[in-house]
Amino acid sequence: MKLGTVTGCVWATKKSPALRGQSLLQVRVGELELVAADLVGAGQGDRVILSFGSAARLEQPDCPVDAAIVGILDEGTVRECR
Amino acid sequence: MKLGTVTGCVWATKKSPALRGQSLLQVRVGELELVAADLVGAGQGDRVILSFGSAARLEQPDCPVDAAIVGILDEGTVRECR
Amino acid sequence: MKLGTVTGCVWATKKSPALRGQSLLQVRVGELELVAADLVGAGQGDRVILSFGSAARLEQPDCPVDAAIVGILDEGTVRECR
Amino acid sequence: MKLGTVTGCVWATKKSPALRGQSLLQVRVGELELVAADLVGAGQGDRVILSFGSAARLEQPDCPVDAAIVGILDEGTVRECR
Amino acid sequence: MKLGTVTGCVWATKKSPALRGQSLLQVRVGELELVAADLVGAGQGDRVILSFGSAARLEQPDCPVDAAIVGILDEGTVRECR
Repeated sequence: MKLGTVTGCVWATKKSPALRGQSLLQVRVGELELVAADLVGAGQGDRVILSFGSAARLEQPDCPVDAAIVGILDEGTVRECR
Repeated sequence: MKLGTVTGCVWATKKSPALRGQSLLQVRVGELELVAADLVGAGQGDRVILSFGSAARLEQPDCPVDAAIVGILDEGTVRECR
Repeated sequence: MKLGTVTGCVWATKKSPALRGQSLLQVRVGELELVAADLVGAGQGDRVILSFGSAARLEQPDCPVDAAIVGILDEGTVRECR
Repeated sequence: MKLGTVTGCVWATKKSPALRGQSLLQVRVGELELVAADLVGAGQGDRVILSFGSAARLEQPDCPVDAAIVGILDEGTVRECR
Repeated sequence: MKLGTVTGCVWATKKSPALRGQSLLQVRVGELELVAADLVGAGQGDRVILSFGSAARLEQPDCPVDAAIVGILDEGTVRECR
């Protein structure tokens, strides 16, 4: 998985029917801007955990997405393991 | 998923039989030129949403494509989430 | 998918039995040299369409390849969509 | 697979229910920071082997992860094969 | 697939049980060092063909690897196709 920051909402009226009702967010990962399905209710500026590939479709197998937001970081950063 | 811009149409007479009738478009994603199956009727210059991997084959499981255009951006850009 | 140019033939006597009889070509994609299974009879210098991942195994599910040549470009270039 | 170094623990209260109880570690692979499920009890600073994609879900098919720590290097380095 | 050169043997006592008995080699692919399961008996310095993703698990579906050595180049180089 990768960590990223939500930077926008993606609107597309013309799309695959299987994407209807799907919340698509733009997420910056390093230098890249990606688009991911939101599974956890993330919002603008949130630091999120992204999962890619078929992992992104476990909760909705018929939805043609290849990236999903599967978690929101508690404090925006990652700490050393104790 | 990634955002890209349609830059051309790909013609190949000699191809895998499973690709027959498939509309293949060239799409620029950042610095890269990719080829994707068009599932939504995109045209030259459209800003599109691309899905990769097995997600690109959900609608046509026997077609050997690894990228598909699954949506067209409403306004060409992505806005902040409200 | 990606576009590439066939740059050589790959010979390997010692290989996975499931690769026997498989034509493997070297293909340059941008700056990278890759190896792909040839499904369409491509030759040295051809401009080809490559599909990656499980898409490359649709026609031969038991063959351990992750890239396949699925088409040959008609004119070596991609044109604007009309 | 790739080799990496564990650099932190990832905490996310708000997450996909299928991730509950899953230990997620931050791992540096070259210049990149990734997040991976820990299958072997790795700790801060350990040199680990990471597997990506569906390989990361073999032990827990319903967990939406795309990377897993599948081993810890014995001595932190890789030696020449004898 | 990609071409690479075997640069070492990877030893990990603490690992996923499904990796037991699996020969893991370090392979240099361009600038990158990767780890791959050896399916063909490759040795230090061999020029090898690597397959990635689920292709790497066709011969051993329960082994959490995402890369496998599936062939050894006959002469260390690739020649023009005749």
